[in-house]
Amino acid sequence: MTVYLVGAGPGDADLLTVRAAQLLAEAEVVVHDRLISREVLALVNKRAARYDVGKAPGLAHSQEGINELLVALARDFEFVVRLKGGDPFVFGRGGEEVEALEAHGIDVRVVPGVTSAFAGPLLAGIPVTHRGVSHGVTVVTGSSVKGSRVDFACLANADVTLVVLMGVERRAEIAAELIEGGLAPSTPVGVVEWASTDQQRCLRCRLDELGASHVRAPAVLVIGEVAALDLGSVKTFAATWAFA
Amino acid sequence: MTVYLVGAGPGDADLLTVRAAQLLAEAEVVVHDRLISREVLALVNKRAARYDVGKAPGLAHSQEGINELLVALARDFEFVVRLKGGDPFVFGRGGEEVEALEAHGIDVRVVPGVTSAFAGPLLAGIPVTHRGVSHGVTVVTGSSVKGSRVDFACLANADVTLVVLMGVERRAEIAAELIEGGLAPSTPVGVVEWASTDQQRCLRCRLDELGASHVRAPAVLVIGEVAALDLGSVKTFAATWAFA
Repeated sequence: MTVYLVGAGPGDADLLTVRAAQLLAEAEVVVHDRLISREVLALVNKRAARYDVGKAPGLAHSQEGINELLVALARDFEFVVRLKGGDPFVFGRGGEEVEALEAHGIDVRVVPGVTSAFAGPLLAGIPVTHRGVSHGVTVVTGSSVKGSRVDFACLANADVTLVVLMGVERRAEIAAELIEGGLAPSTPVGVVEWASTDQQRCLRCRLDELGASHVRAPAVLVIGEVAALDLGSVKTFAATWAFA
Repeated sequence: MTVYLVGAGPGDADLLTVRAAQLLAEAEVVVHDRLISREVLALVNKRAARYDVGKAPGLAHSQEGINELLVALARDFEFVVRLKGGDPFVFGRGGEEVEALEAHGIDVRVVPGVTSAFAGPLLAGIPVTHRGVSHGVTVVTGSSVKGSRVDFACLANADVTLVVLMGVERRAEIAAELIEGGLAPSTPVGVVEWASTDQQRCLRCRLDELGASHVRAPAVLVIGEVAALDLGSVKTFAATWAFA
């Protein structure tokens, strides 16, 4: 009768929080997203029931369906873990799941996770803030949201790093809007694919080259002067991580 | 001869990453900031030497001094942990420490942490993004930086949540700049003091009331419509956490 909303971090099981690892080991049921690594899932209690509710394009699992599943499971089990990539409240729609569960009087607890928005760039050698280079960081999603899209022109700011999650498909449009908003076409961009996994790859280009670049989703886009930095040795660490 | 730059998360030892907890248990030397909780420090290997380089106002530990200390320790020890609150690369000046160590040919590895910028609000019941309410989140610091201050007027944006770290002292000025930049005086604000500790307190007010509010540092300011949300049950979880 308690549902734990747990952040799984960027993929490496060692980047789970201590509490997340404990909860996975003790859960009766785990409801997880599509992009949770095999390494993280290997830590789930072997007797636990598992539900993969990955919202891949075309799949039937709507957010409403997931909310209903969680409510139903919370009635049947004492100890449900809802596992989400990164941090469950940074575009993870965790807030909606909390509201749905609370509306049914179900006890919910949350465990924040390491967000891919910051860890992704870092593991590729790009710090999202850096003294004298960037005075802040904005995180948005590139996906179109029903009835509203992020106004990228409004976010064009040479002093603040822009991190775009789920922005691969719209990258040409995003770059155009940012340049129209006043960002220099030569602004450095880093594209981090499959951060923290053994498929991690980091592409560097100029903002006006982003549209034509070859990028595979999932990837984190980092736009701003910090993307010209390269804290090289960081990579050797990331490269030791496993994923499948 | 290896220095690990490790994020300690917001304070609760259970919000350390699994890797961070392992590194603390095995370190020969730990160099840490002022705001690391006693609970986290209790996990440090008992035989390890400890250096508190907290940069409290008026203390002698400059960033240059810390860089020099790390370089010196890396020459004397095989296994040095540099422990920083939150995530070491979100206003943690981790990038500068990496550059200083790399300039001396020292092997550096980084371990991202749970950032207080997102976990702080969440543990007070405020999700930094929420469908239909906020389409993004910007994180800045309120401290004046030599030769440059964050242009808050430029960040005034009703669609994007603004999180301000280290902004308690300048909160009146920040509120005035945001209102001048176009943000409604009635914009909801959440102020989360001592997030994740047993002293955690969350104050809610309007943007035009922020300047006159009674706030104790350290606190995270959350400015935007999400600050009107209250994922209530989350609090019961935070309240069980210990700190000293």
